[in-house]
Amino acid sequence: MLVVMQQGATDLQIQAVIDRMIEMGFDVHRSTGVIHTVLGGVGGKDEFDLGILEVMEGVKEAHRIVSPYKLASRSFRPQGTVIAVGEVQIGGPEVVVMAGPCSVESREQIERSAEVAARGGARILRGGAFKPRSSPYSFQGMGEDGLRLLRDAASRHGLKVVSEVMDSSQIPLLMEYADILQVGARNMQNFNLLRDLGRQRKPVLLKRGISATIEELLLSAEYILSGGNYEVILCERGIRTFETYTRNTMDISAIPIVKKLSHLPMVADPSHGTGRRDKVAPMARAAVAAGADGLIVEVHPDPDHALSDGAQSLFPEQFEDMMAQLRMIASAVGRTI
Amino acid sequence: MLVVMQQGATDLQIQAVIDRMIEMGFDVHRSTGVIHTVLGGVGGKDEFDLGILEVMEGVKEAHRIVSPYKLASRSFRPQGTVIAVGEVQIGGPEVVVMAGPCSVESREQIERSAEVAARGGARILRGGAFKPRSSPYSFQGMGEDGLRLLRDAASRHGLKVVSEVMDSSQIPLLMEYADILQVGARNMQNFNLLRDLGRQRKPVLLKRGISATIEELLLSAEYILSGGNYEVILCERGIRTFETYTRNTMDISAIPIVKKLSHLPMVADPSHGTGRRDKVAPMARAAVAAGADGLIVEVHPDPDHALSDGAQSLFPEQFEDMMAQLRMIASAVGRTI
Amino acid sequence: MLVVMQQGATDLQIQAVIDRMIEMGFDVHRSTGVIHTVLGGVGGKDEFDLGILEVMEGVKEAHRIVSPYKLASRSFRPQGTVIAVGEVQIGGPEVVVMAGPCSVESREQIERSAEVAARGGARILRGGAFKPRSSPYSFQGMGEDGLRLLRDAASRHGLKVVSEVMDSSQIPLLMEYADILQVGARNMQNFNLLRDLGRQRKPVLLKRGISATIEELLLSAEYILSGGNYEVILCERGIRTFETYTRNTMDISAIPIVKKLSHLPMVADPSHGTGRRDKVAPMARAAVAAGADGLIVEVHPDPDHALSDGAQSLFPEQFEDMMAQLRMIASAVGRTI
Amino acid sequence: MLVVMQQGATDLQIQAVIDRMIEMGFDVHRSTGVIHTVLGGVGGKDEFDLGILEVMEGVKEAHRIVSPYKLASRSFRPQGTVIAVGEVQIGGPEVVVMAGPCSVESREQIERSAEVAARGGARILRGGAFKPRSSPYSFQGMGEDGLRLLRDAASRHGLKVVSEVMDSSQIPLLMEYADILQVGARNMQNFNLLRDLGRQRKPVLLKRGISATIEELLLSAEYILSGGNYEVILCERGIRTFETYTRNTMDISAIPIVKKLSHLPMVADPSHGTGRRDKVAPMARAAVAAGADGLIVEVHPDPDHALSDGAQSLFPEQFEDMMAQLRMIASAVGRTI
Repeated sequence: MLVVMQQGATDLQIQAVIDRMIEMGFDVHRSTGVIHTVLGGVGGKDEFDLGILEVMEGVKEAHRIVSPYKLASRSFRPQGTVIAVGEVQIGGPEVVVMAGPCSVESREQIERSAEVAARGGARILRGGAFKPRSSPYSFQGMGEDGLRLLRDAASRHGLKVVSEVMDSSQIPLLMEYADILQVGARNMQNFNLLRDLGRQRKPVLLKRGISATIEELLLSAEYILSGGNYEVILCERGIRTFETYTRNTMDISAIPIVKKLSHLPMVADPSHGTGRRDKVAPMARAAVAAGADGLIVEVHPDPDHALSDGAQSLFPEQFEDMMAQLRMIASAVGRTI
Repeated sequence: MLVVMQQGATDLQIQAVIDRMIEMGFDVHRSTGVIHTVLGGVGGKDEFDLGILEVMEGVKEAHRIVSPYKLASRSFRPQGTVIAVGEVQIGGPEVVVMAGPCSVESREQIERSAEVAARGGARILRGGAFKPRSSPYSFQGMGEDGLRLLRDAASRHGLKVVSEVMDSSQIPLLMEYADILQVGARNMQNFNLLRDLGRQRKPVLLKRGISATIEELLLSAEYILSGGNYEVILCERGIRTFETYTRNTMDISAIPIVKKLSHLPMVADPSHGTGRRDKVAPMARAAVAAGADGLIVEVHPDPDHALSDGAQSLFPEQFEDMMAQLRMIASAVGRTI
Repeated sequence: MLVVMQQGATDLQIQAVIDRMIEMGFDVHRSTGVIHTVLGGVGGKDEFDLGILEVMEGVKEAHRIVSPYKLASRSFRPQGTVIAVGEVQIGGPEVVVMAGPCSVESREQIERSAEVAARGGARILRGGAFKPRSSPYSFQGMGEDGLRLLRDAASRHGLKVVSEVMDSSQIPLLMEYADILQVGARNMQNFNLLRDLGRQRKPVLLKRGISATIEELLLSAEYILSGGNYEVILCERGIRTFETYTRNTMDISAIPIVKKLSHLPMVADPSHGTGRRDKVAPMARAAVAAGADGLIVEVHPDPDHALSDGAQSLFPEQFEDMMAQLRMIASAVGRTI
Repeated sequence: MLVVMQQGATDLQIQAVIDRMIEMGFDVHRSTGVIHTVLGGVGGKDEFDLGILEVMEGVKEAHRIVSPYKLASRSFRPQGTVIAVGEVQIGGPEVVVMAGPCSVESREQIERSAEVAARGGARILRGGAFKPRSSPYSFQGMGEDGLRLLRDAASRHGLKVVSEVMDSSQIPLLMEYADILQVGARNMQNFNLLRDLGRQRKPVLLKRGISATIEELLLSAEYILSGGNYEVILCERGIRTFETYTRNTMDISAIPIVKKLSHLPMVADPSHGTGRRDKVAPMARAAVAAGADGLIVEVHPDPDHALSDGAQSLFPEQFEDMMAQLRMIASAVGRTI
């Protein structure tokens, strides 16, 4: 830890900070400059409250040096993590596409979705059974019936299954039907859920919250990893900014940044990232061009009558066209789809 | 609902939109202008996906006319809601102060906190027993033991109790020990939790998420209200912006805005709103000056050794000074503390 | 214009709004719904202050229907605009790359930059002569000497020249040396400058301000277009968000959005968009994959000793590698470099 | 300067950073920890590009220690600056109110505005003669005629004058008619203008840009101060966030923060800060409660027919009511109006 004292900080103030640092378990090195005194803290616990020092009299600023996350950092596993879901490998040379409707709505709808997904080249079928909706008056999902239909449709078409878990009580159910358990953006800091997901052994797809920094995303991954589950897939799906033309602003630069900071695979969700069907294909191309390990995309046999997220769901033909474009982009960056 | 067609939209496009609107249950009125055709939709369900229309060919923009929240809106109860917690009334002429530590840490710590809070003029004791922490390596709270200590300390000093509930499974426990159940900013859109809180009958303090719009805050309140629990207290506690000097940017203007849009009481949390002890008093004064119905503030007998949020916790003397200032501000806006 | 009245708005309030709309020059159509009354305004001036109506008693919301920009909108020229700078065409099938240092620093530096740019396949040489720096103590540019060196170096390598104009007094100088006049992000709403640029006849490269919405960018373009200069190239270069890992957050989705809303060419600046050399190539690839008509990129013969923006300037070898990748991405989206 | 190396940085990487720091003019102290090596740089120029180090191989992060602004910092003049405009003192015990219309529109309008301002207790009359408007089709101001009318009206009512200067060419004109020269939010980083304002000797009111950090605001003030003009008044007027209910989000916390970081007076503009007349009074109260040295507020004899900013202009009666409230708030924080 480093603490920079203000210009003109008194000896008393400096001593008080040193005392506090020692009390926190640090060895303290004092370096007196012409303008500023700098205090370096070595040793100490990994976890401490930097703010305590920041608000002390005479302190200009304080910096944590050691990253608050460890298991999620690239240095923990420099070669990168490849997550195997059966024969599908996420984080390897293949750009893995997960596709399907926002929600499972009926046997026929999910069957047709699976067919479209498989034909287009997706490897994993997505579909929600429990829907967190911002209005209490909206469709809330089919529950276990939906999961069963999802699993059946996926199996018929040789696809794996990813589906969202909304709270810890749903984990056993999801374990039964899904291959990957998805944590939605609103739950990215639901730490109880993250801890419980760290204790089971299926891969977790962790979506970035709309106001989460990249560091916070990695800290949330750390919660899962620290429970012993090392199979975490990160996902960029748009952050909230002042621009309102799109529902969110997709932070494409998060893809190469996360790939550098962490060993975990990073995928992108251009459907939620834009909220508009006509922007999904360009942003999917951009994500793959920027180095994404995969995509999760909404496609629906009849988007205009979807019970949720219809506006951002692709028509089957659009999905096929997009997949053709993505194959070319993937090959331009040395990967396959 | 109103749909504005693009300049040059074809008859075919216009007819397709009309058909879709009718299918959604609306009566449609078409108004053909020199530049734009506007389609007005009347009747129909309250809940529908505007996006479906927005992405149709030829559509320029679509507007929902009817607010997505009803029970939370001022027109539902124009005179405003006053919530009684025993003899304490929130939303009435008194500016109600809730104070206490971030977390309950020990019997002595909460006892001394309660003493400071009561002596300064607070009416409600705050203190967390379950702490959602962004790092898995941080202090996670004392659980039920903490709740018991909190309740005891409050009772000894004639205070009511507010404490955070992190998920539905904790509701029964909180019901036993707390007078007001707090929903933290990260849970503002945990809709399962909100629904369950709507089914019980204690007041809920609902904090605004750091990236939540005012409309989303009111929609989350609607979840609770729609379950039959009308006792919801809203709370501004800072939003995430590009400015990093403070941990969050406290949106003081949300106070008069919510008071106009909704009948629910609105309080402010200057501790989380700023993250820095030295900015708590000015922002508390600003909140009361802007019309807040109350404050929730962190105070700790020994902030430098607090197990959480020490940097934003007031020293006992600072709390007393602040309360003296607040009394004058309250009186300047025709209220009491 | 559409004005939606609040539930329960009185006849008096409605009449006051109607009167004001008529006074503003609109014909008013009143539509009385079960819950809300909606007032449609037809005719009237293009420019009016919507806010005046929004704050009237009983008004819920007001919407402008006609876009505030006209000449910049796609409907003004549906086939799109191609801007010819000599034989270089911006907005056509070629993805045009502009490259060079942030600032012209010396004859040798700009000569070597031009050589690198030309060899890599750039068509236009960039370089600043007047530097707007956030600190008064930083290098402020070489002025006219720099422009002369820039022009000479470009000519020797068959390149065109783009350079920034900081205020109207510099226009004549820039007209003499540059082929494209660049407006920096901080000047995007310097309306005097925009108006003056509308009166001359060289192409303008208009950068999006870091807090400008897409609509504001198009309105600023409108200022130039309305002066009779139709040669405006728009540029995404990052917006300010809460994420601080990158200097700005590059809004890749703005590329397909602007291409749909407007007929003007849209390029991207991944150097300012990220502020970090190691993120320039992935974001350049993403921009081209998303449909950008060109790129403006910083490259420097010796970035570590650049007088400005060294951290985001590519090394010559990095530039060459990036160009090779971009050629493949361009071909994947049916374009050339 | 402090550079923290990544875990596992090689000796070669560390040496390369040390060499670069020495080349930049720093003496380097190396401190080797168990996990991270930290390099401290002492001496060196005040101005350098931190980014150059941040993107070097093996570097985790780099921190500037010395503030990039000096003359604007509180330590330069710990007792604070009081700016005298005739007998009006800004930064002293009085909360100074500046009031008037957005634009000067006519002799009668500004005369009536001055009368309202003076009667309510304002000390300074505001009014724009050159209007930067986001649409080229809007009213652009009366120019010098407007300034003359403004000055006359102010004089008749014993008021001082503040008016906006849009570019350097207007400085002589403003010097003739105004007592305080205002720099609008869009010009906060128009460094040519700032430099020129540093060379003249009238006070400058510098508004914070809508996406400017507090540090950037102080750096812009530094530009003026470094020219020898020490009379700079800072102004908070709202920042751009994701919340769209208000035009901007007024950052009230910036008031106490700037008062701590800088010796310059800090005022607030609740009219632009909210964009809505009905929110002006609460936010004005909040600003004074938080410690603002003054306010700049829009008031108009007939806001509904104002040529600009009518929606945020107070009616004369509203202004009077607000001033009465403000007097009580000011007295609660130990000041006068």
